[in-house]
Amino acid sequence: MSDPHSFAAVPMKTVGPIRLAGPEVEGEVSIPLATYESPLWPSVDRGARVTRACGGLKVVVVDERMTRSIVVQAPGAAAAAAVARALPDRMGDLQEAVATTSRFAQLLDVHTQVAGNLLYVRFELSTGDASGHNMVTKAADALMKWLLHEYPLLTYISVSGNYCTDKKVSAVNGILGRGRYVVAEAVIPREVGQKLLRTTPEKIAEINLKKNLIGTMLAGGLRSANAHFANMLLGFYLATGQDAANLVEGSQGFVHAEVTPDGDLYFSCTLPHLIVGTVGNGKDLGFVRDNLEKMGCLADRKPGENARRLAILCAAGVWCGELSLLAAQTNPGELMRAHLALERKK
Amino acid sequence: MSDPHSFAAVPMKTVGPIRLAGPEVEGEVSIPLATYESPLWPSVDRGARVTRACGGLKVVVVDERMTRSIVVQAPGAAAAAAVARALPDRMGDLQEAVATTSRFAQLLDVHTQVAGNLLYVRFELSTGDASGHNMVTKAADALMKWLLHEYPLLTYISVSGNYCTDKKVSAVNGILGRGRYVVAEAVIPREVGQKLLRTTPEKIAEINLKKNLIGTMLAGGLRSANAHFANMLLGFYLATGQDAANLVEGSQGFVHAEVTPDGDLYFSCTLPHLIVGTVGNGKDLGFVRDNLEKMGCLADRKPGENARRLAILCAAGVWCGELSLLAAQTNPGELMRAHLALERKK
Amino acid sequence: MSDPHSFAAVPMKTVGPIRLAGPEVEGEVSIPLATYESPLWPSVDRGARVTRACGGLKVVVVDERMTRSIVVQAPGAAAAAAVARALPDRMGDLQEAVATTSRFAQLLDVHTQVAGNLLYVRFELSTGDASGHNMVTKAADALMKWLLHEYPLLTYISVSGNYCTDKKVSAVNGILGRGRYVVAEAVIPREVGQKLLRTTPEKIAEINLKKNLIGTMLAGGLRSANAHFANMLLGFYLATGQDAANLVEGSQGFVHAEVTPDGDLYFSCTLPHLIVGTVGNGKDLGFVRDNLEKMGCLADRKPGENARRLAILCAAGVWCGELSLLAAQTNPGELMRAHLALERKK
Amino acid sequence: MSDPHSFAAVPMKTVGPIRLAGPEVEGEVSIPLATYESPLWPSVDRGARVTRACGGLKVVVVDERMTRSIVVQAPGAAAAAAVARALPDRMGDLQEAVATTSRFAQLLDVHTQVAGNLLYVRFELSTGDASGHNMVTKAADALMKWLLHEYPLLTYISVSGNYCTDKKVSAVNGILGRGRYVVAEAVIPREVGQKLLRTTPEKIAEINLKKNLIGTMLAGGLRSANAHFANMLLGFYLATGQDAANLVEGSQGFVHAEVTPDGDLYFSCTLPHLIVGTVGNGKDLGFVRDNLEKMGCLADRKPGENARRLAILCAAGVWCGELSLLAAQTNPGELMRAHLALERKK
Repeated sequence: MSDPHSFAAVPMKTVGPIRLAGPEVEGEVSIPLATYESPLWPSVDRGARVTRACGGLKVVVVDERMTRSIVVQAPGAAAAAAVARALPDRMGDLQEAVATTSRFAQLLDVHTQVAGNLLYVRFELSTGDASGHNMVTKAADALMKWLLHEYPLLTYISVSGNYCTDKKVSAVNGILGRGRYVVAEAVIPREVGQKLLRTTPEKIAEINLKKNLIGTMLAGGLRSANAHFANMLLGFYLATGQDAANLVEGSQGFVHAEVTPDGDLYFSCTLPHLIVGTVGNGKDLGFVRDNLEKMGCLADRKPGENARRLAILCAAGVWCGELSLLAAQTNPGELMRAHLALERKK
Repeated sequence: MSDPHSFAAVPMKTVGPIRLAGPEVEGEVSIPLATYESPLWPSVDRGARVTRACGGLKVVVVDERMTRSIVVQAPGAAAAAAVARALPDRMGDLQEAVATTSRFAQLLDVHTQVAGNLLYVRFELSTGDASGHNMVTKAADALMKWLLHEYPLLTYISVSGNYCTDKKVSAVNGILGRGRYVVAEAVIPREVGQKLLRTTPEKIAEINLKKNLIGTMLAGGLRSANAHFANMLLGFYLATGQDAANLVEGSQGFVHAEVTPDGDLYFSCTLPHLIVGTVGNGKDLGFVRDNLEKMGCLADRKPGENARRLAILCAAGVWCGELSLLAAQTNPGELMRAHLALERKK
Repeated sequence: MSDPHSFAAVPMKTVGPIRLAGPEVEGEVSIPLATYESPLWPSVDRGARVTRACGGLKVVVVDERMTRSIVVQAPGAAAAAAVARALPDRMGDLQEAVATTSRFAQLLDVHTQVAGNLLYVRFELSTGDASGHNMVTKAADALMKWLLHEYPLLTYISVSGNYCTDKKVSAVNGILGRGRYVVAEAVIPREVGQKLLRTTPEKIAEINLKKNLIGTMLAGGLRSANAHFANMLLGFYLATGQDAANLVEGSQGFVHAEVTPDGDLYFSCTLPHLIVGTVGNGKDLGFVRDNLEKMGCLADRKPGENARRLAILCAAGVWCGELSLLAAQTNPGELMRAHLALERKK
Repeated sequence: MSDPHSFAAVPMKTVGPIRLAGPEVEGEVSIPLATYESPLWPSVDRGARVTRACGGLKVVVVDERMTRSIVVQAPGAAAAAAVARALPDRMGDLQEAVATTSRFAQLLDVHTQVAGNLLYVRFELSTGDASGHNMVTKAADALMKWLLHEYPLLTYISVSGNYCTDKKVSAVNGILGRGRYVVAEAVIPREVGQKLLRTTPEKIAEINLKKNLIGTMLAGGLRSANAHFANMLLGFYLATGQDAANLVEGSQGFVHAEVTPDGDLYFSCTLPHLIVGTVGNGKDLGFVRDNLEKMGCLADRKPGENARRLAILCAAGVWCGELSLLAAQTNPGELMRAHLALERKK
C-alpha cells in the first residue's frame, strides 16, 4: 500500500438558494453539490427557483436514530427466544453498557429476530451530530460482551449481523428506522409549474404514478419510488464530507404527488433513512468546513441539531432535483435537448 | 447558481498489488481507492496480500449490456400486448433507429412488461467503453420517436419508465442484466487464511451464511448478500471518475463461500451489475487519467475492452475488501481494535 | 399414515354472470368460488354486476409458459459462465431431451444465473392444458441428465434450484414469466360506479394509489399492488381443482386505475403469473368437471386453449372482487357494516 | 348469484404421528392434510418418522399478534408526523376504543409510517383463539373513528392501508409481527438421516444453502428461504378450516440447517407469520371440529392457547414436509421416481 495519499477531486458548485418555510428551518439557503454529471446543477437549481416562487419548502424530521445489529447463536430456538423476550426488561443494563463507550451515544430501543437457533439483536441509538457508524459499532462491541457474559449459553457469530443494515438494500431500515426520516413537501401553484417547469400538476402526478410507482414495482424495486434521489444525495454527500456509500439506503425513498382540490400540485419527497453528520471522518477538510459553515451547520447547538439541519437541507436538495427531472421527463425529448445544450456550452 | 465551480476532494491511496490469474487479466495490478473511511485502505490491502499468497484471483465477465426503459400508454391492454409481441420481430428497425444516435451503441435485446394499458419497453445495448447512461438515453429518445410513429395509438408517458432501472434498488437489473456481470473467486489455502486473516475456512463460510445470507434476508434485503461491497465500489468509483451513484445497483451482489473437500476456502464475490467506463464524464480529469493509465485501462483495444478490464479490477478490489472485513468479524472485538489502532496512529 | 382418505369440504357458490367482451372470450359466464369467507360471494357478485352494466370486461393473455430451474456446480465461475453462454446455441438438443418426457411439453427458452461456481438454469416450457408442475419436473430431470453428460465437469446440486420459482415470493416469475400473464380491464361509467359501487372514479384511483401502491411499498411489498387478489384466487382454485398453493405467486399482481378524460373509471387487474390447468391432479373429481364444463373449459380445442380460457375467467373473477372491495373501502364503515349485515342474516 | 351453496371437496389424509418434545407440546400427534397433490402425504409422513427416530421435534412460539393498518391524510407531513409522535402516549385511549369492539381483542402496540402527507397506522392486537381478521377490522373501524374525532385535521382514506398486510407479500409482517412466529427444530442423528432420508447432514446443509438461500435470492425472493412451506400450509389450512389465502404470508419463512460438531444435522424451519385459529369461520364444520378435537385443540384452556397449539402442530407438519423434499432433492432422480411410483400405484 502506497503512502502518503493524494486526493480524488469531484467538481463542485453551489446551487440555489432554496427557500425553506419551516417548521425547523426558515429562510433561503444555498447548497453545494459535487458531481461529474454537470446537468445535475442546473436541474437542482431549477427546483430551487420553484421553492422561491411557491412560498418555500416545508421539511420535517419524523425520526432519528442509528443502528447496529449483532448475531449470536443459542443452543436452540427456545433459548434464543428466551433471550429475545428478556432483553426489553434489561434496557437499563444495556444503556449502561452503551454509556461506557461514548459521551453521545444513547440506546433508544432494541429489536430482535430469531431464525432457528440464531438470534439477531438490533440496537438503535441516538448519536448526536455524528452519522454514527463508529459509535454504534463501539456500542455493539460492548453490548456483545455484556450479552455473552449475561447469557453464557450464547456464542459469538458476528458483531454485525446485517440486520442493521449498513449500505445494503433493505426493508428493515425504513420500517424500524435508521438515520433521519425526513419529508420535504410544497404546494406548487399551477402557473409556477407552467412557467418554471413547463409542465402541469396532472402530468407530474401521472409520471409519478406510472414511472416512479408502477415502473419501480415492475422492476422488482423495494420501498423505493423515485427517479433519481441517488444523484442529489451523492452530490450533497461528497460536498459535505459524508460517507457517500450511504446512498444505497438513501436511494430507497418515495415521491408522493397529487393535484390539490385547487388544481395546484402537492409534491413531496420522503427519505426514510438519510444518514449525515457534521462531525467525524471527512468533516475536518477545509472545503467541507466551509460548506457546513455556509449552510449554518456548525453552530453552537445541542448535540444532533446541526446534523438535523444538514439532513433537512439535504432533503431539500433532493426535492429540487427530483421535481426538476420528473418535469423534464413529462415532455418528449426535453431531457436529451437539455443534455445536448449543456454539452454544446462546454 | 454560482459559477465557476471548485472541487470536493476525497483522500485517495493506491492499494495492492492484487494478483490476478485470468482468464482475462493476469499479473499484479494495484488499484486506487478514494474514501473518507481510512480503515478501508489497510483492509483491502490485506485482501490483496491474500491474492498474492494464493496464486491469484480469477475474475470472469459473464455478460455486459446497458439499459433504458421507456413507458407509453395504449388504449387498452390488448393493444399494449400486441405491440409487446410485435417488437421482437422488428429488431432490424429498432437497431436502425439506435444506429442513428451513436457510433458505439448497438441494440442487443428488448424486453417488455404490460401493466393494464401501460407498456414498458426495456432496451438493452452495448455501449463500448462508456458506462453508457447518456448513450442509452439518446437511443431511447430515438426509439420512443420510432415507436410513437409506428404505433400511433400509443401515447408518450416517459422516456425513462424505471424498468431500466438506474440507481435504484431492483431485481430486474440482475435478472435481465445491466452493466457488467462479474464474478471474482479464489481458493485460499487454510494456512494462508490462518496467517494473513487470522481465521479459518469454516468460520468464513459460517459468517457468510449467518450474516450475509440469513441476516440480509431477515432485513428484507433483495438480491443482496454481502457485508460492504458498497464501500469498495465507492472508493474505486471516485478514484476512476465514475458516477458513484451507481453503487446503489453495485451494492446488490453476493458472496458465495464454502470449505473445499481439501479443507481450504472457496471465496467468491458476484457483482451482477457493475457499471464503469473509461470514457465519458469525469474521465478527462488528470488524476483519473493517471489512475486508468496505471491500471492499463487506456490501451488501444477494441471498444469495450478497456472498460471490461476496469470492471475486472473493480471486482478484484471488492473481493479483497469483502474477504478482509468478514475475516475480521469472525473474531470478537477485532474490528473495533483495528479501528482504534488506526485512530491512535493518526 | 392412515388410509383411505376422506375429504375436506369448502362451501362453494356460483357467482355472476360476468360479462366478457373479448378479445378471446365473449358473452356471459358464471364462476364458482369455494371459501370459508362468505362475504366473498356477494362482493365478487357485485363486481360481476358492474361488468354487465359497463359493456363487459376485456381480458387479454399476454404470455404463457411454465418453468423449472436446476442448479449445478462447476469447478469455478469461468466454467459455469462458459456453459451459461453455450446453452442458447444448444436449444435443439435441449428440446430433444424435453421431447422424450412428454407429448405436450415444449421448451420455449432458457435463462441462466451464475453465482460464484454455481450455475442456475431456468427452463421455460409450454405445457398444454396442464398447469405443468409435474411436466416441467420430468423435463428438468431429463435436462439435468443431459447437462451432466454433456458437461462432465458439472456436478448435481438440485433438480429444483428455487430460481423457478414455485409457490414462493419472487421477482423472477413476473420478469421472465411463469404461468399465464393475464390483464383484465374495463371502463366503468361514472354513473354505474355511483349506483352499483356507491363510489366515484376519483375515489377508486385515490385508494389504489394510497393503499395498493404506496401502502404496499411501505410494507416492503414486492411486485404487488392489490387489496386481496389472493381471496378470489383461493376461491376459484379450490372450485376448479387447482393446486391452491400457487396463490403465493398469484397474489403478486397489480391494479392500475385512473380517471379517463371523460370522467369515467379505467380499472385493470394485471396477474403476471396465473397458474391453472384443466387436466391433471384434482381435475377428475365430479364437482371440478361440472364446474369446468359449465364454464366451457372442457371443450375440444387445441392443447392449452381450455386452460387459457380458464385463466381468463379466473382473472375476470379477480377483477370483480378487487373492484368491489376497493369501492367498499372508499366509504368509512361500509366494510364492517356489510360484514355485520351478512352475519345477522346467518 | 346462485343459492344455496354446495361444497368443493379436497382429498384428506391423516399423517404421522409426529413426535413433539416441548417446550409447549409433548407427545405424539397425527395431523390431517387436504391436498390434490397426493405425494405430499408420504412425504410429510417420512418427516414424521424422522421426528420419532430422533427424540422429537422442539417447537417454540416466539411471538403472537394480529394486525390491521389504516391510512389517513393530513394537511401536510408535519401534521402527519405530529400525530404519529402523539399516538404512543395515547395507548390508554386507543385500548379503550378497541375494548368496545370485542371481549378478546387487546391492543398490544402501534406503529406508524409517514409518506408525504399520508399517515399509516398499524395496530397490533392479541385476538385469542381466532385468527383475528374480523376482530382487527372491527377494531380498526373503531380506532379510525376515534382518530378522525381526536385529530379533525385528518381525513379518511382507507380502513385498510396495506401496511397491515393481509395475504400479500411483505417484509413488515416478519419485522413487526403478524400471526404467530414459530420455530420448529431438531437434531437428526447422521444414521437416522442415512436410513430414513437416504442423505447426509452435509448434503442437506448444502442444498439449503444453494437452493433455499442462494437460489431464492437470485429469484428476487423476499424474506423467504424454503422449498415448499406453502404445500404443507395449504394441506393443513384446508383440513382445519382456516382461510388458506393466508399461505401467502405463510410461504415467507426460512430453513436454517447446519452440521453439528458431532456430525449430525441441525434442521429448523422458522415461520414468522403463521395465521391460524380454532374459532371463527369454517371452524364449525364437522370434519374441522373432528380434526381440531383429535389434535387436542378444542380443550378448555385460556384464550389463545388452543390456537397456539394448532400453530405448533402446523409448524411441525411444515418441518416434516420440508425436510423430506429437500432430502429427496439431494439425490438425482429421486423426486421423479417417487412421483412415478405413486402414480403407478394409483
